[in-house]
Amino acid sequence: MMKNLNVKIIEVGPRDGLQNEKKILSTADRVTLVKKLAVAGLNQIEFGAYVSPKWVPQMYGTERMAKSLNKWTARPKKLSLSALVPNEYGMQEFLKNPSEKASLFTATSEKFSFKNTNCSIKESFERMIPIIKLATKNKIKLRAYISTVFGCPFEGQTSLARAVKLTDKFFKMGVHEVSIGDTIGVASPKQVRNFLDLCEKKRLPMNRIAMHFHDTRGTALANVVESLNWGIRSFDTSIGGLGGCPYAPGALGNLATEDLVYLLKRMGYKTSVNLKSLVRIHHWIQKKVAHPLNSHVGASGPWILT
Amino acid sequence: MMKNLNVKIIEVGPRDGLQNEKKILSTADRVTLVKKLAVAGLNQIEFGAYVSPKWVPQMYGTERMAKSLNKWTARPKKLSLSALVPNEYGMQEFLKNPSEKASLFTATSEKFSFKNTNCSIKESFERMIPIIKLATKNKIKLRAYISTVFGCPFEGQTSLARAVKLTDKFFKMGVHEVSIGDTIGVASPKQVRNFLDLCEKKRLPMNRIAMHFHDTRGTALANVVESLNWGIRSFDTSIGGLGGCPYAPGALGNLATEDLVYLLKRMGYKTSVNLKSLVRIHHWIQKKVAHPLNSHVGASGPWILT
Repeated sequence: MMKNLNVKIIEVGPRDGLQNEKKILSTADRVTLVKKLAVAGLNQIEFGAYVSPKWVPQMYGTERMAKSLNKWTARPKKLSLSALVPNEYGMQEFLKNPSEKASLFTATSEKFSFKNTNCSIKESFERMIPIIKLATKNKIKLRAYISTVFGCPFEGQTSLARAVKLTDKFFKMGVHEVSIGDTIGVASPKQVRNFLDLCEKKRLPMNRIAMHFHDTRGTALANVVESLNWGIRSFDTSIGGLGGCPYAPGALGNLATEDLVYLLKRMGYKTSVNLKSLVRIHHWIQKKVAHPLNSHVGASGPWILT
Repeated sequence: MMKNLNVKIIEVGPRDGLQNEKKILSTADRVTLVKKLAVAGLNQIEFGAYVSPKWVPQMYGTERMAKSLNKWTARPKKLSLSALVPNEYGMQEFLKNPSEKASLFTATSEKFSFKNTNCSIKESFERMIPIIKLATKNKIKLRAYISTVFGCPFEGQTSLARAVKLTDKFFKMGVHEVSIGDTIGVASPKQVRNFLDLCEKKRLPMNRIAMHFHDTRGTALANVVESLNWGIRSFDTSIGGLGGCPYAPGALGNLATEDLVYLLKRMGYKTSVNLKSLVRIHHWIQKKVAHPLNSHVGASGPWILT
């Protein structure tokens, strides 16, 4: 059997990363970040969120960013942009300057769902119905995030079976890709194995599942390797590990894009990304957010043994 | 087949960690550190080095530490201490206040060997002959470190076949345990797999090989999981990741003991160690070395999902 060595990286730094940074960056800086990341070879980038700036001030002006990025003359042909859409109004805003993908979200923990979006898991799905209708009508692809799959800061252990059920539900609703989030970075390869084993038994399409690991307890790359062993080829990462962990200040959050790219290169997997460019972007965005970013390869440098 | 779930942790922070710290700690503080680690359940600890304080000022007074630790009335029965011994003179000093184990060292890179110890690999083995004789005569167990197994800061890629040959040579010389060092943290699970596959083909005793990973590029725990899959059950770690990486200032060095213990607990492996105690020791030693330690679990806290 020929092993597929091509790995897809979904860069979520400009959205999931920056929305957890204290410093609010201008839309111009955020557009520059997205362009730099695209030029470095990242062709799946989540650039913003159509949420109220009252809730998430860091994401203000997402519509202006979309407009600017759609007008980018040097835009790489393979670039696919996505933005988070919380409700019908957000989707209407999205469609004024449409991107390739709209992202939905829910959680496996009721408490997390309430604290994060002030609704139950069931209600979060009800909110999606008009979004999905509009997306289908306008030929916009859908991605969906499931948070707290491996544990919740409020509920503790969460149900893997429920996560599999929600993943299946998303696929049946026409979502193209489901992102499985270890929101607080508590998973080890054992939990990842248990989850992916359930997915395989349920015959879910492994090529449409993305794993979204946090490196809070140093386990992110170990979890990536376990996922690769199960045939997963899509991973969400954040340049420089932007955003940190809101539930453990000072700890790492999103797996850093450069750390994933280093591992993949050393293991013989292929990506579209230039590692040296990533480390340069790490240092550039570090100045903008004005605090040290904690990625491993950002600190060690992009040296690859040959 | 019953899988062996017991994992042995060799704590090298008081020696390998502190010798790379700028601040020189007193022998009293270093003895306190060793005692705290032993009380936390670590029963294999390398506490010092019988080297000249002109070379390694951080290790001054190792003989006084040995004396003090041998007199410790509350010393746990299972505690096994080791100290690094570079030459015959060092071994004579060691024997004045003997510990359970003496540690030898070499590298797979000639350039590293010269820069580190001013001798070739061959000469490093010649230096060991009188040490081994004295150890055998006095019933002292031997452990040996091989550095730069997966890459060298001066030579780049190093030979895995040479590392296997040196490991075999150590066993034939009567060494009890060989520690395989990823000195600059460049290995991924692919290189670990290649190395352990060679060891297995050579029929080396896997239960006497310890893996010594650095987390410089975030791959340490992924490498641990790969090693566990090959039957390895011994790992060197350093409390708080003490020492950092001398070849990449600001980057992580030794895998932190608390990060390994978190992973093992989440995967169902058994250790003798209390994770909460480790995090307390992390914060205590952080004050002593007077700079932030970068371990993941030290920053996130010792929370374990139940």
